[in-house]
Amino acid sequence: MLLNKRISIVNFIKTIKFDIVFIVSYAVAVGILDQYGFLSKISIPIGVTAVFGTAVALLLGFRTNQAYERWWEARIIWGAIVNDSRTLVRQCVSFFKRSNGQYDILVNEMTNRQIIWCYALGESLRKLPFSPKVKEYQKSYKLESFNIPNTLLSEHSETLLKAKENGMVNDFQQVQIDSTIARLCDSMGKCERIKNTVFPKAHSLLIHLIIYVFATMLPFGLSDQYLAVEISLTIGIPIIFVAIEKTSILMQDPFENRPMDTPVTDLATTIEINLKQMIGDEDIPIKEKASEYYIL
Amino acid sequence: MLLNKRISIVNFIKTIKFDIVFIVSYAVAVGILDQYGFLSKISIPIGVTAVFGTAVALLLGFRTNQAYERWWEARIIWGAIVNDSRTLVRQCVSFFKRSNGQYDILVNEMTNRQIIWCYALGESLRKLPFSPKVKEYQKSYKLESFNIPNTLLSEHSETLLKAKENGMVNDFQQVQIDSTIARLCDSMGKCERIKNTVFPKAHSLLIHLIIYVFATMLPFGLSDQYLAVEISLTIGIPIIFVAIEKTSILMQDPFENRPMDTPVTDLATTIEINLKQMIGDEDIPIKEKASEYYIL
Amino acid sequence: MLLNKRISIVNFIKTIKFDIVFIVSYAVAVGILDQYGFLSKISIPIGVTAVFGTAVALLLGFRTNQAYERWWEARIIWGAIVNDSRTLVRQCVSFFKRSNGQYDILVNEMTNRQIIWCYALGESLRKLPFSPKVKEYQKSYKLESFNIPNTLLSEHSETLLKAKENGMVNDFQQVQIDSTIARLCDSMGKCERIKNTVFPKAHSLLIHLIIYVFATMLPFGLSDQYLAVEISLTIGIPIIFVAIEKTSILMQDPFENRPMDTPVTDLATTIEINLKQMIGDEDIPIKEKASEYYIL
Amino acid sequence: MLLNKRISIVNFIKTIKFDIVFIVSYAVAVGILDQYGFLSKISIPIGVTAVFGTAVALLLGFRTNQAYERWWEARIIWGAIVNDSRTLVRQCVSFFKRSNGQYDILVNEMTNRQIIWCYALGESLRKLPFSPKVKEYQKSYKLESFNIPNTLLSEHSETLLKAKENGMVNDFQQVQIDSTIARLCDSMGKCERIKNTVFPKAHSLLIHLIIYVFATMLPFGLSDQYLAVEISLTIGIPIIFVAIEKTSILMQDPFENRPMDTPVTDLATTIEINLKQMIGDEDIPIKEKASEYYIL
Amino acid sequence: MLLNKRISIVNFIKTIKFDIVFIVSYAVAVGILDQYGFLSKISIPIGVTAVFGTAVALLLGFRTNQAYERWWEARIIWGAIVNDSRTLVRQCVSFFKRSNGQYDILVNEMTNRQIIWCYALGESLRKLPFSPKVKEYQKSYKLESFNIPNTLLSEHSETLLKAKENGMVNDFQQVQIDSTIARLCDSMGKCERIKNTVFPKAHSLLIHLIIYVFATMLPFGLSDQYLAVEISLTIGIPIIFVAIEKTSILMQDPFENRPMDTPVTDLATTIEINLKQMIGDEDIPIKEKASEYYIL
Repeated sequence: MLLNKRISIVNFIKTIKFDIVFIVSYAVAVGILDQYGFLSKISIPIGVTAVFGTAVALLLGFRTNQAYERWWEARIIWGAIVNDSRTLVRQCVSFFKRSNGQYDILVNEMTNRQIIWCYALGESLRKLPFSPKVKEYQKSYKLESFNIPNTLLSEHSETLLKAKENGMVNDFQQVQIDSTIARLCDSMGKCERIKNTVFPKAHSLLIHLIIYVFATMLPFGLSDQYLAVEISLTIGIPIIFVAIEKTSILMQDPFENRPMDTPVTDLATTIEINLKQMIGDEDIPIKEKASEYYIL
Repeated sequence: MLLNKRISIVNFIKTIKFDIVFIVSYAVAVGILDQYGFLSKISIPIGVTAVFGTAVALLLGFRTNQAYERWWEARIIWGAIVNDSRTLVRQCVSFFKRSNGQYDILVNEMTNRQIIWCYALGESLRKLPFSPKVKEYQKSYKLESFNIPNTLLSEHSETLLKAKENGMVNDFQQVQIDSTIARLCDSMGKCERIKNTVFPKAHSLLIHLIIYVFATMLPFGLSDQYLAVEISLTIGIPIIFVAIEKTSILMQDPFENRPMDTPVTDLATTIEINLKQMIGDEDIPIKEKASEYYIL
Repeated sequence: MLLNKRISIVNFIKTIKFDIVFIVSYAVAVGILDQYGFLSKISIPIGVTAVFGTAVALLLGFRTNQAYERWWEARIIWGAIVNDSRTLVRQCVSFFKRSNGQYDILVNEMTNRQIIWCYALGESLRKLPFSPKVKEYQKSYKLESFNIPNTLLSEHSETLLKAKENGMVNDFQQVQIDSTIARLCDSMGKCERIKNTVFPKAHSLLIHLIIYVFATMLPFGLSDQYLAVEISLTIGIPIIFVAIEKTSILMQDPFENRPMDTPVTDLATTIEINLKQMIGDEDIPIKEKASEYYIL
Repeated sequence: MLLNKRISIVNFIKTIKFDIVFIVSYAVAVGILDQYGFLSKISIPIGVTAVFGTAVALLLGFRTNQAYERWWEARIIWGAIVNDSRTLVRQCVSFFKRSNGQYDILVNEMTNRQIIWCYALGESLRKLPFSPKVKEYQKSYKLESFNIPNTLLSEHSETLLKAKENGMVNDFQQVQIDSTIARLCDSMGKCERIKNTVFPKAHSLLIHLIIYVFATMLPFGLSDQYLAVEISLTIGIPIIFVAIEKTSILMQDPFENRPMDTPVTDLATTIEINLKQMIGDEDIPIKEKASEYYIL
Repeated sequence: MLLNKRISIVNFIKTIKFDIVFIVSYAVAVGILDQYGFLSKISIPIGVTAVFGTAVALLLGFRTNQAYERWWEARIIWGAIVNDSRTLVRQCVSFFKRSNGQYDILVNEMTNRQIIWCYALGESLRKLPFSPKVKEYQKSYKLESFNIPNTLLSEHSETLLKAKENGMVNDFQQVQIDSTIARLCDSMGKCERIKNTVFPKAHSLLIHLIIYVFATMLPFGLSDQYLAVEISLTIGIPIIFVAIEKTSILMQDPFENRPMDTPVTDLATTIEINLKQMIGDEDIPIKEKASEYYIL
């Protein structure tokens, strides 16, 4: 997630550098040819360019909107993960029978697993190797699976079953905690859906195409009196459109380990702090101040 | 679902080949007639064409948006099917009484049926004959019905009832698992709704009509100096509009066994892998690398 | 619901015949007066007409969108009715105690009443007299009420109560089935909401008004050289706008016994087939092939 | 709610009479000054007016949409109140133990209170004094509170508690009915939210401002040949924009005792009829035919 | 929240004073240079400016819409907090066993803590120091935590557990009240999500940039005859666009202790009044009349 105060324009420009090079070259080439009279016969009425520009603007609006929706949905899902993690631990703390000798063991087990689950989910969404924390957990519990987060949820159910068999929770409470686990399972699946569903390729390509068609048409709709103005416009307007398009492309895939990602590691740390405090664990991680213009 | 890396423009162009032929013929014909002065008296002010073009762009925006919504809803529903399949098996594994001799049998029964259900649902949505896997299941259980997936859900309830009668689940657990089955039933019905509801025919036709009216008006709004430019524009702009329209038409029906479909077979395989791993089944299918530019 | 293959343009044109007559008369009158120089002094800059046309297009977009939303919501509600009907019967079949002598009677009672409820709801939404099937049921059970579907849901609860008193369902199961009935009650109320809420009259009128104001302005923005072109445009563009508006008007009220309705009768038949198959009833209706360009 | 058949344009025009007077005066003044050459040097290119007009149209579209959403949400909430009222009474009728002597008393108590709640909620949303029906109830039960509807829901819980203590409902049933009351509490709070949240003032003012800026610019973009046309346009277009804006303003606050309100009194009467019929009460109110062009 | 009757334009203008100064300076500078012929050779066809202006208007529309959605979502969440607070207290009042000696103590404990929770949540969202009310509570209960509202919800569960152990609530009722606490936990997390998620920085900057690019282009598209008109337009239109943008910026962050905030303190007071009345507490705070043009 980009932070509010700082910003890195340089990094953003790097992401569209090929487009910039191409558009600048084209604009300069057409401008110069025009100056020497090679293209002076070609002229496109500005009205046609305007209609086409309106279509570009509308489709960019559609694109921006859908990308924003995906990005915001990803954030909503991780918000739900924060809430359900807290609810899960609150339920364990207050439902499990305290007089039972295993109370502390089982509550800690659930809490730690939930923390690991958050980190593991974030890392597997980003296709990163697991962090040491998760690896250590995985090793000590001998977890082998294609889908570690899903296995951890199954382990939650196992612990719950143990609590049930020890008489630490009653039937209702088991079912109520199971509902919380089911919601976590839903959130996990929703993240996977966003990660694995490619934004409709055909739309992406068509929008990219029409921006370039528009850029191609633009110089022929401008008067040729003043070269610098013509070139500025044929460079500036398409680059702004490309920048808007690129922003959408970066936002629509929020689990790619990039600055505009949903900050899943940061959220997992928040969850760790909250959950540990809820069970009175003293070993609370300290959130470092963001040293970059974004948090991950 | 189209994949991100590869793409087949040729295939897409094939889907709009009649439109392309028609538009090109018209543009060339008008261009030539114009050149010889037959149509030079007809001229439509570019402002009128612009208004009309804006209306076309707006309605295409509406169309694109609705098609995207349907496509995305279909993906959300199948995401929910993934989640609820995992939840169903997790609940069976942890709720059914393990000491009971039938534990393994019933858990396997539920898991396998759920896997078959996913394949059967995807295949019946696509109006395909059932795959060997499903046929074999259907044969060995003697299922005869107009709606196999619905029958499978009834069978789930039967197994659950058996578990209840054997004392393997208590009242709450039966009701909780029943809720999961009810959600699967919802998802199934939602898929059928998308499959069976034709996108409003009148809208489709009107949008197609106005693109062609726009294409007809376009050459009379252009100046006649430079034939190649006029023809390029009268070909290019309408084809881009038709391409956007076609993309929407392909997206709005996501269960048609076409490249832009919701990848129901791929998702069913994912579910099979996940579920089998949850019950410790070793016979896990291997996902082949997509050999095409899409997965189904 | 209009079907995909067939279409009746004639029927659609009939619905806007008065608009067509009016617009054609106006366009021809202005065109002729113009030709004889009576109106030649009046001219409206095409830019003003364009702004106004853009406003018309935007408001038509809004209108189209809202109408589509209502139509799609109605379909979603009936989709939920399909799902909950199946869930209700599945629950009765698997929850009711089979050893009890009344099992078959009560399950049949619930299933048949649910089928009748679907037909009765569809017919009362369309303000049609009840079909023979419903009338017969109503007569044999002596139902008298302003709101038959609501009474049928109360009867569901009565049957459920009987089952409870016979010891055929336990407390949880009663509550779980009651939740399904509550969802059916919700769907019924949502249909009534769409049926009884008039689309904001003031918006409808304003949009109709501005289309006509636009039609009035249009000829004065066109050059007067070529009468046929001028008349074609002053007829064609407003009629397309009126057609889009009319399509929205037809879609926004989906329970009016018209071709663009939500196909409630067809859906009720689907439900009947599904439910009867679930209880092993052999008397399954056969869905006739649609003989028209639509199904109801 | 405005009804479909009848309409009162006069009433609507009254609501924008100040805007009409102002716009007409301005248009006539500018028209006359222009005629005498005072303003002939001022001219704004029609393109600038067009851009600005497009911005006006877009923001009006946004405004219209948000207002429609608020109005439709209010209607959805009252639809949910209808559904949950029916569900509440259905649950009381079928859950309460009939053999108990207090059955009729408690069912009647719940039903009547629910009817009173609907009227009381509608009236307090509209800031009206309570109707005689509600006042009488309030008096006979000695209710004193800032928020009568909320108190009535608490009374529902009291009755439910009494039923529980008499052994008339079991634990599940109490919790299930409590969920229905919680949903009614939600609907009440949602209505209060819409009532108490002022539509963002800054947006309202900016939109009003830009309509007037547009109205001011408009005459300077028109040619000055033909006074009547210029004045018609400078009057007509802004008034249409103001009318659209006003419609939105009227719709966005749906509990103000105005013709475009959500018809809460009418819905409460519908609920009364339905609920009384469900408990076999004979004293059913008769819905009068609407004597106006709207129902409240 | 801004109130309906009063308004402070001065305060709003202050928030965009730097933009105003900049735009006015630029417009005057260009106007004067133009007058003396320095820039007369530069002219941008108005059509290009128009396309660009349409893109600006569309992106502003997108921005306005997203900001409105965030603001409205924040209000919906606080509406849910009002509803769930009432439901929580209603459930405690009617579920807790009255014959138990601790009834009054526990009900008061829950009610007061819920009131404190509302104030504490609002204040921590606004990053304000806690108010005396909350501080006193915090002190008397020795609460130390990074996240006081979350700790208070844990305390709710503790009280509920105590009630359970005293035999004051049964299993169902505990689970039902726990669901209400889980919903409050959800609402809390949703507020934190809105507070902590920066609106996509890249979008904000691009929109700001294109408004300024548009402002830069504008004077070169206007005719130079009449200085005052040119300067008015080059000042007026960009300032209106900046004002619309600023309104969105102010609305998108609704927990910043600013006039356009969600009125969390006011809502917490409403909740306090409602809850105290529900438990018969006489010490009801009096809502002061808003002395400003807004409430917080």
